[in-house]
Amino acid sequence: MQKSISGFSKFSKAEKINWLIANYFTNNIQARSILESYWNQDQKLQQLHDEFIENTISNFYMPFGVAPNFLINDKLYTLPMTIEESSVVAAAGNAAKFWMSRGGFKTTVLSTEKNGHIHFTFKGQKEAIRNCFEALKPQLLKATAPLTTNMEKRGGGILDLQLIDCTSKMAHYYQIEVAFETVDAMGANFINSCLEQISTTFEALSKDASILNGFLPEVVMSILSNYVPHCVVRAEVSCTVDDLTLNGHFTGNEFAEKFIQAVEIASVEPYRAVTHNKGIMNGVDAVVIATGNDFRAVEAGVHAYAAKDGQYRSLSHANIKDNVFRFWVDLPLALGTVGGLTALHPMVKLALELLEKPSAKELMQIVAAAGLAQNFAALRSLTTTGIQKGHMKMHLLNILNQLQANPNEKEQLITHFKTHSVSHRAVVEALKKLR
Amino acid sequence: MQKSISGFSKFSKAEKINWLIANYFTNNIQARSILESYWNQDQKLQQLHDEFIENTISNFYMPFGVAPNFLINDKLYTLPMTIEESSVVAAAGNAAKFWMSRGGFKTTVLSTEKNGHIHFTFKGQKEAIRNCFEALKPQLLKATAPLTTNMEKRGGGILDLQLIDCTSKMAHYYQIEVAFETVDAMGANFINSCLEQISTTFEALSKDASILNGFLPEVVMSILSNYVPHCVVRAEVSCTVDDLTLNGHFTGNEFAEKFIQAVEIASVEPYRAVTHNKGIMNGVDAVVIATGNDFRAVEAGVHAYAAKDGQYRSLSHANIKDNVFRFWVDLPLALGTVGGLTALHPMVKLALELLEKPSAKELMQIVAAAGLAQNFAALRSLTTTGIQKGHMKMHLLNILNQLQANPNEKEQLITHFKTHSVSHRAVVEALKKLR
Repeated sequence: MQKSISGFSKFSKAEKINWLIANYFTNNIQARSILESYWNQDQKLQQLHDEFIENTISNFYMPFGVAPNFLINDKLYTLPMTIEESSVVAAAGNAAKFWMSRGGFKTTVLSTEKNGHIHFTFKGQKEAIRNCFEALKPQLLKATAPLTTNMEKRGGGILDLQLIDCTSKMAHYYQIEVAFETVDAMGANFINSCLEQISTTFEALSKDASILNGFLPEVVMSILSNYVPHCVVRAEVSCTVDDLTLNGHFTGNEFAEKFIQAVEIASVEPYRAVTHNKGIMNGVDAVVIATGNDFRAVEAGVHAYAAKDGQYRSLSHANIKDNVFRFWVDLPLALGTVGGLTALHPMVKLALELLEKPSAKELMQIVAAAGLAQNFAALRSLTTTGIQKGHMKMHLLNILNQLQANPNEKEQLITHFKTHSVSHRAVVEALKKLR
Repeated sequence: MQKSISGFSKFSKAEKINWLIANYFTNNIQARSILESYWNQDQKLQQLHDEFIENTISNFYMPFGVAPNFLINDKLYTLPMTIEESSVVAAAGNAAKFWMSRGGFKTTVLSTEKNGHIHFTFKGQKEAIRNCFEALKPQLLKATAPLTTNMEKRGGGILDLQLIDCTSKMAHYYQIEVAFETVDAMGANFINSCLEQISTTFEALSKDASILNGFLPEVVMSILSNYVPHCVVRAEVSCTVDDLTLNGHFTGNEFAEKFIQAVEIASVEPYRAVTHNKGIMNGVDAVVIATGNDFRAVEAGVHAYAAKDGQYRSLSHANIKDNVFRFWVDLPLALGTVGGLTALHPMVKLALELLEKPSAKELMQIVAAAGLAQNFAALRSLTTTGIQKGHMKMHLLNILNQLQANPNEKEQLITHFKTHSVSHRAVVEALKKLR
């Protein structure tokens, strides 16, 4: 069997690359130099990045951009955004500027509790396991003391521990649900370590619990949940309807009504809701990644929250009341500004400094504002000029680069397409004409 | 108002950085050199990356790693993975190796249709708009001809166009739903351009449609959907139950039963399902990003699919039948191997070459296998040793780097922690002892 390999992770980086070249890049003599061209000149810095994960062979560049003019709770921010999609930062900047002159974003943290579970089965009497759990609870908590000391000093720790009967969902299935406050840490390692400790203690102590009548709880797994409906932030914008007037094309009222219709469609139609929320996540993830947070965790929690009432719906809402247009989003966000990559990745540290070293709560609010801004920009384009105009304008440079236009050609065509609509074919033809 | 700025996007990169330094980094004299230390030495290459998005000031490094030994439909792959989470590539490699000796991954593309919608309102008779749409349908299709020619040459195009009555969801709400086959392109630009053309033509032609009795359809927006339940791939693994034996700690049967229980819990309990699916997405996104695809689109579509029956559930399934253990996942994935960044980002091109230039269908299968592998690895850890052991082992180097351990200290402590359990505090103490 070719191309299988044993002990690969123990190879040096050079050996790994040699193996890849020999097996996959025999027709690409440039492969090695491409990989190496992305290494940092500073060997120590490169080693730091190599050691983030296993089998690192190079760096993948994601553009690190900034979006200024985000007025959030009367404070001006410039947002760090790490994203590859061409129109996202531009859209964020436009929306931020629009709202800066209309009072900015108002944000509130609604809750900060996170949960983890010891999932276990028990075949004895419900009453027995309930009594056993209540009797052991103080010891379970006590067993976590060595793990929680530091977190408690920072104002966090374990908030609660309860037994949940899930036997209606699956035979013999119970949970010990543990509620956590993790302050400025995202807390995954802390939560999982506490849960595994509680789980071990619970299994050990229940062996001696005569109340269980010989039946023993069997732990299936102990793990935090990325579903965080009790760790929610709200971001909103509002202004009078008249203040929404756009370049004379629409009255404030026309625009507001069409905008609200678009939000309502995203609330009732899942095909639209998914794309609508994807737009919110364009803004959310860009800041989440730049600040060293785990975007898969955020994505999973947010989209599940969008489906919490049994149908997948828009995360944002809009209405008009007393001639005031209001647009808001509630997002479950478990974020950290300490731990993980935050003290390790130099660009993450820089991003957090650009945000003036926010607490996790402040970061939740900034991220929610980024998501709402993105949603506003997308809906404004969609309901007025269409999404393609702005998107293709931003994508123009990518097309020109792909066609290897030189600086002079680029300049001429950027001017040309200020008054012509961009499509891949139109750019190809304009470039052909020019050459 | 300080820190607000006009015309920022028109500044040069140097001017942007000067403004940021003056406003946000007065206490960090290193900020400029950190930003610049991440620029590529090759100015032309750096400019290419700068032009991907607006306001780029530097590159954000994501580790580019590889996971070998992925046997998928009897072909061996080494997967390119771009991800910052320390244990993901290691887990993928372990799971791949485990299944390589048990027949590997079997994958099938179940469907490849994508959808977009013209969302509009109409206040006249239902019958009138239906008849009008049917009468205009050939002209709507014809209007897209200039846009679809190239796609049709490649075997794709518009598959169908239908009017959907959504008035039960919202008053006067209808859709023109358009089905697309986009072959090897993700197709977002193609789909949106077609939809906007259909929309414009529909509005123009309906003005002359006497059948509408003076009522006119009003388009709210025209946009592709990232919900792609008709663009689905299945990945599965299977082996005899006896073949699942793990290091003598569990019999194959014990392990299989516990594993299936864990999958069942993720099917019935949303708190668990979200984290379970997040683990799948660790593998999915790592390959999606490395191959230049849009992970927000994939995330939104996948999580909404997990909630399609009204409750958010596990995307993967497992069973035992006739002594054969089977584990599989169905994932809606709209991916491209042409267009977008695929021909533009040198590391994306390299990643696609490492995968031997797959079609979009082949990439769907590879990505699904990566997701299933990741899920298998997570569930195996969770149901046996617990997740923290492997995770903290992988995180050890990050902690050592954060504590600025020198190479000699690193070596000694890596040896030490082969037989001791890793926690942040344990590493701090071991390092203190050493120093």
